[in-house]
Amino acid sequence: MITNLRQMADTVRSSGIKKRIAVAWAQDPNTIGSLHRAVKEGFAEAIMIGRHEQILATCKETGADPQCFTLVESPDEKSAAELAVSLTRDSEADVAMKGLVGTDKFLRAVMDREKGLLPPKTVMSYACAVEIPAYHKLLFITDTAVIPFPDLDQKVAMARYAVEMARRFGIEKPRVALIGASEKVSDHFPNTLDYQEMCRMAERGQIPDCIMDGPVDLFLACDPESVRIKGVDTPLAGDADILLFPSLESCNPFYKGLMLFGGGELAGMICGTSKPVVLMSRSESELSKYYCVALACLMASQKT
Amino acid sequence: MITNLRQMADTVRSSGIKKRIAVAWAQDPNTIGSLHRAVKEGFAEAIMIGRHEQILATCKETGADPQCFTLVESPDEKSAAELAVSLTRDSEADVAMKGLVGTDKFLRAVMDREKGLLPPKTVMSYACAVEIPAYHKLLFITDTAVIPFPDLDQKVAMARYAVEMARRFGIEKPRVALIGASEKVSDHFPNTLDYQEMCRMAERGQIPDCIMDGPVDLFLACDPESVRIKGVDTPLAGDADILLFPSLESCNPFYKGLMLFGGGELAGMICGTSKPVVLMSRSESELSKYYCVALACLMASQKT
Repeated sequence: MITNLRQMADTVRSSGIKKRIAVAWAQDPNTIGSLHRAVKEGFAEAIMIGRHEQILATCKETGADPQCFTLVESPDEKSAAELAVSLTRDSEADVAMKGLVGTDKFLRAVMDREKGLLPPKTVMSYACAVEIPAYHKLLFITDTAVIPFPDLDQKVAMARYAVEMARRFGIEKPRVALIGASEKVSDHFPNTLDYQEMCRMAERGQIPDCIMDGPVDLFLACDPESVRIKGVDTPLAGDADILLFPSLESCNPFYKGLMLFGGGELAGMICGTSKPVVLMSRSESELSKYYCVALACLMASQKT
Repeated sequence: MITNLRQMADTVRSSGIKKRIAVAWAQDPNTIGSLHRAVKEGFAEAIMIGRHEQILATCKETGADPQCFTLVESPDEKSAAELAVSLTRDSEADVAMKGLVGTDKFLRAVMDREKGLLPPKTVMSYACAVEIPAYHKLLFITDTAVIPFPDLDQKVAMARYAVEMARRFGIEKPRVALIGASEKVSDHFPNTLDYQEMCRMAERGQIPDCIMDGPVDLFLACDPESVRIKGVDTPLAGDADILLFPSLESCNPFYKGLMLFGGGELAGMICGTSKPVVLMSRSESELSKYYCVALACLMASQKT
């Protein structure tokens, strides 16, 4: 079982995995730095799409060896995004990654019905593995970035994707906490009605390979002492692996709070696409981008 | 300016404030311990409502001197809650506090139209001051506990209460961050439309004494480095005092994350009532309850 991100990257590095990453508009320093490291460590090949001149200039600036990369010339952001996606779709690459291109443009290419990476009627979501010094293992969190107010079907898909990710980290039966403000099911909180239905689905095996409970608050999900004091009988036992949130407005500040005030570090990716898609904010660190690349390579590798 | 909770309690202690707290169903050890300390330190008098026998037994158990308290016999939770509220309403006490009574029963007494503490048509909300080692000052957060999905009027009231609280900590013009998943106003996130309106109201002086901006994500609110990288021109400048959240499902896991993973400590209270009301979870620590009592005494004292 992988319990931190360093160990995740080491696992990828030592497992003989080697995946090809197609990067859209690849000229920013953090993207180049993270991919340079992944290529040097042997688990990635990088196809850097953008303006040769700019990419070479950034390589010089950051001390990255441009010989590590395959450079593909592209005139603008939109073309770069479309090319990264089509290379991945045509299996010239295993992973599509956003560089300096705007999120909207990049996602439009990913979601294109004809030429994109999203199978019809598939829910697209986002899950990440967060490492926090104050927790004894990784916390998988969803959805930090994509679905504003997930309905029942979307929540089910979110849970499945996160379970699949956690299992690739060696957690055979991850504990999924459906997060609310308390453990009470109530009409005043429609999400808790979805949660109730999801727990039934998990019991019936419709959401397989996990132990699910909710609604629970964060304390019942992650703090055994609170479980004891409140006397709530939950199979999560304060030892959750996965936290599923009721909305983007709920999940996004939560994970950012962990980053800013809990010393957190993360690796995340788009879920639901036919191939892994790496999408990060421009302001993410080189280390975070490196972890995302490693995670995408892990998820792109043959399922065990 | 008060920048941590220890300093807040010290300020109350050294200011000559002395307030009377009426505690409903007062027999649990944390409640008795926290009030014992507040009474010993001279800023509170405590009217402990409940079964004498049980209160005396807990005093013995915890080493608290029962002579510090005024004991008032009450046969059950409901009567105890009603009595704590009516004593406060009739100015026999300055603060009403929940002991071991259930939250629902306690709030019913507080919200009673005839005998309660909530003026007609007043929004009731909850605000707390959170101390986190990784932030350079207190963060005031609302609403962690009461309003599930606040509408515009409720959000405005939440902002006003939090501003009033922050100003009592010596922050003359607190910076209010209206928290979303990003800085974009969008129909897909109806709360961001309320935020837009609130910023206009703040500019017009309808929400006075504050610097307000939103929607912003947590990074723009609390991290100057993110403000610089993203190039967003916000008067918050990554130095927010107050975080207003779009829903209870958003605020509740956020503050619990700070407690559990960020080493946080808090003091909170009900806002909107005619007198301060202290309401905490049974599982809160003695120190948290002590800070809540100190906060209520501060807020009950003459406005400066």
